[in-house]
Amino acid sequence: MISCDEERLRKTIEAFSTFGATENGGVTRLSMSDEDIIARNYFCECCKELNMDVRFDDMGDIYAILPGKKDVPPIVMGSHLDSVEKGGRFDGVLGVLTALEVIRTFRHYNIEPEIPLMIVNFTNEEGARFDPAMMSSGVLANKFEKSKMLQSLDKEGISFGEALKESGYEGSVENRLTEATAYLELHIEQGPVLERQQIDIGVVEGVLGMVCYEITINGESNHAGTTPMSMRKDPLFLAASIITNLRQNLSQIDEELVYTIGRMNVTPNIHTVIPNKVVFTLEARHKDPNKIEQVVDVIQKIPQEVEGCTTQSTKLWGRDTVVFDSAICNQLEVSCKNHHYSYRRMYSGAGHDAQFIASYIPSAMIFVPSVNGKSHCEEEETSYADCAKGANVLLETVLALQSNYSMKKEECI
Amino acid sequence: MISCDEERLRKTIEAFSTFGATENGGVTRLSMSDEDIIARNYFCECCKELNMDVRFDDMGDIYAILPGKKDVPPIVMGSHLDSVEKGGRFDGVLGVLTALEVIRTFRHYNIEPEIPLMIVNFTNEEGARFDPAMMSSGVLANKFEKSKMLQSLDKEGISFGEALKESGYEGSVENRLTEATAYLELHIEQGPVLERQQIDIGVVEGVLGMVCYEITINGESNHAGTTPMSMRKDPLFLAASIITNLRQNLSQIDEELVYTIGRMNVTPNIHTVIPNKVVFTLEARHKDPNKIEQVVDVIQKIPQEVEGCTTQSTKLWGRDTVVFDSAICNQLEVSCKNHHYSYRRMYSGAGHDAQFIASYIPSAMIFVPSVNGKSHCEEEETSYADCAKGANVLLETVLALQSNYSMKKEECI
Repeated sequence: MISCDEERLRKTIEAFSTFGATENGGVTRLSMSDEDIIARNYFCECCKELNMDVRFDDMGDIYAILPGKKDVPPIVMGSHLDSVEKGGRFDGVLGVLTALEVIRTFRHYNIEPEIPLMIVNFTNEEGARFDPAMMSSGVLANKFEKSKMLQSLDKEGISFGEALKESGYEGSVENRLTEATAYLELHIEQGPVLERQQIDIGVVEGVLGMVCYEITINGESNHAGTTPMSMRKDPLFLAASIITNLRQNLSQIDEELVYTIGRMNVTPNIHTVIPNKVVFTLEARHKDPNKIEQVVDVIQKIPQEVEGCTTQSTKLWGRDTVVFDSAICNQLEVSCKNHHYSYRRMYSGAGHDAQFIASYIPSAMIFVPSVNGKSHCEEEETSYADCAKGANVLLETVLALQSNYSMKKEECI
Repeated sequence: MISCDEERLRKTIEAFSTFGATENGGVTRLSMSDEDIIARNYFCECCKELNMDVRFDDMGDIYAILPGKKDVPPIVMGSHLDSVEKGGRFDGVLGVLTALEVIRTFRHYNIEPEIPLMIVNFTNEEGARFDPAMMSSGVLANKFEKSKMLQSLDKEGISFGEALKESGYEGSVENRLTEATAYLELHIEQGPVLERQQIDIGVVEGVLGMVCYEITINGESNHAGTTPMSMRKDPLFLAASIITNLRQNLSQIDEELVYTIGRMNVTPNIHTVIPNKVVFTLEARHKDPNKIEQVVDVIQKIPQEVEGCTTQSTKLWGRDTVVFDSAICNQLEVSCKNHHYSYRRMYSGAGHDAQFIASYIPSAMIFVPSVNGKSHCEEEETSYADCAKGANVLLETVLALQSNYSMKKEECI
């Protein structure tokens, strides 16, 4: 059984960590920024050194292709090179660099692929510079309209369309990823489960469905010193009791349900003034749509008039659960077993390009542990040993998919 | 029994409402701004027309004196002409203009005062441009150091000292209010009690003591989608339950206690990220220091470690209850009765210049109703009829204090 080269992978990760390096060991590599373009250029160079054919599509996605013996739809591996502001050294880039390591391993052992292998770098996965996240995979999967995406503006008022032109990475619509045998995305878990359970590999069988509501409570501002308690319409004390009740009710739905109040704003937010408005978001995620429905029921049961205040709930957005290809997931398990890595099946709570690509290409993801579950911050960390284990599972799975593909095709003949 | 002239008072209030008038019927008359200086100039003119002697002290306070038959410490009436940003037409200015109306009534009826009458306009009561509030009365009462006050900066970086010089209202330290027979401050209630109870006049017997704490809850940020509920350290859900408990405990202390969480900030305040920090203020006011102590006890009982988070309470500031002069309060009651106005004794929940002046001059305040209890906003409103009732109580009280003074002095002879 062949394996990837952990030392080579480490050097590659370290090289990419210098592109947009921050003071505290993270990276800032916003999509189509100078730092992102340096990373893209270096990635393209690495691919060309491996005799891969490098193309761009009209969203700036980069595809590097290693031809196979047969001219059939490729096995695609990849993720994204962009990061959030002061993000970590692993989120996204690890999926691209482990794919590169797989190709290098093929080259090192002089293995000629049966079917083409492709590495993809999706543009603007983070959405940190240009909203929305997973922009280009969303366009490929017809989830987003390209014309609207081109108009998305960054903080300086530069549109994605302008930045794309300026980058030199605007390619042809014909190059878009339209067909593939499989799409495999390796990513850090971004959560604490694998590390806490001391498990090497997450076999990701889908992405949790979610729903996000904004809840507004309107009361009445008055002077904090002169308004007796009985004459107040205080939305903040009410918010506290509504949130406490929400928590109580949501905790009873299912132990796998996750729910978060991440944003909360109080108006006018002055210590001597009774607030007149509290607005907070509540988002919840679960693989089972029925559980999400139960969350919505709980939210809709918030009384609309209480303690002199009025409440209002607005759905900001939701997404359905995405289920990945079960055959690929089964193969990922086999690959883990072959390497004697511990693994568990799991869902991704975060969004990834794979969730869009899965709508038209058989897809699955591989998770490697995140130290303390941290991501989107400079402290983000995954050991190189764990990165290499992930790369080995990716390699093993690519090899298996190739041989399965050949066998299936032979069966057809 | 003589009365003030409601129509004349109305015209005066309307004239002053034009100085710094805002679009929606309020005023912006920040201390020592152009608008404040126009109001000061016009006020000085009005006083000079009444043959009053006008002086300024070293804090820019304006004193207008109508000499009495006897050269003894004056009866002082007044408040402040400055306002907050987009404040109302009554807060502060009404205390100065009803004082002016009292003098005009004396003049109208050709009453020569037994003892001198003085109107005072205190500089920068609101603290809206230069922190702190009640700046100049605080300096007069030795609560604030003048040298520090001169260095207080507005948003543009202009110091109070510079603005004072520039204003032309910097006078002499010898002119400071040091001695008086009484200080009477008429003010809008800034709360809903008088209006709700359909009472004409508040006889204000003191200013509530208060305490303000800042409570910080530190947790740990993580991805909202990837962190199981059991592995979270979420300070926001904890804050909601702490606030609900605080409310429960505080509500049992005393029905007159008022307590407010006016400011609350969540970090990083992103809907997809579990917060790592929640900071909120809790302020409480009551006339009885023991009740305030009970509030502090409740705050100090917040557990310091709970649900994986740590909590911390810091006292931001407090002030002791101020009790006004009981003889003057009794006289205010008599004045209300003489005019057949309904009245009630009450404490002020808000701070006023009188609370500092009371430390060295027998003082009390008169409240008139605030429509919907609103203040510090453009909707601030008090009917002219209510303003006139307040002016009449002020007039009646000044007349009574004069005659009491004469009687007392004669008794002494």
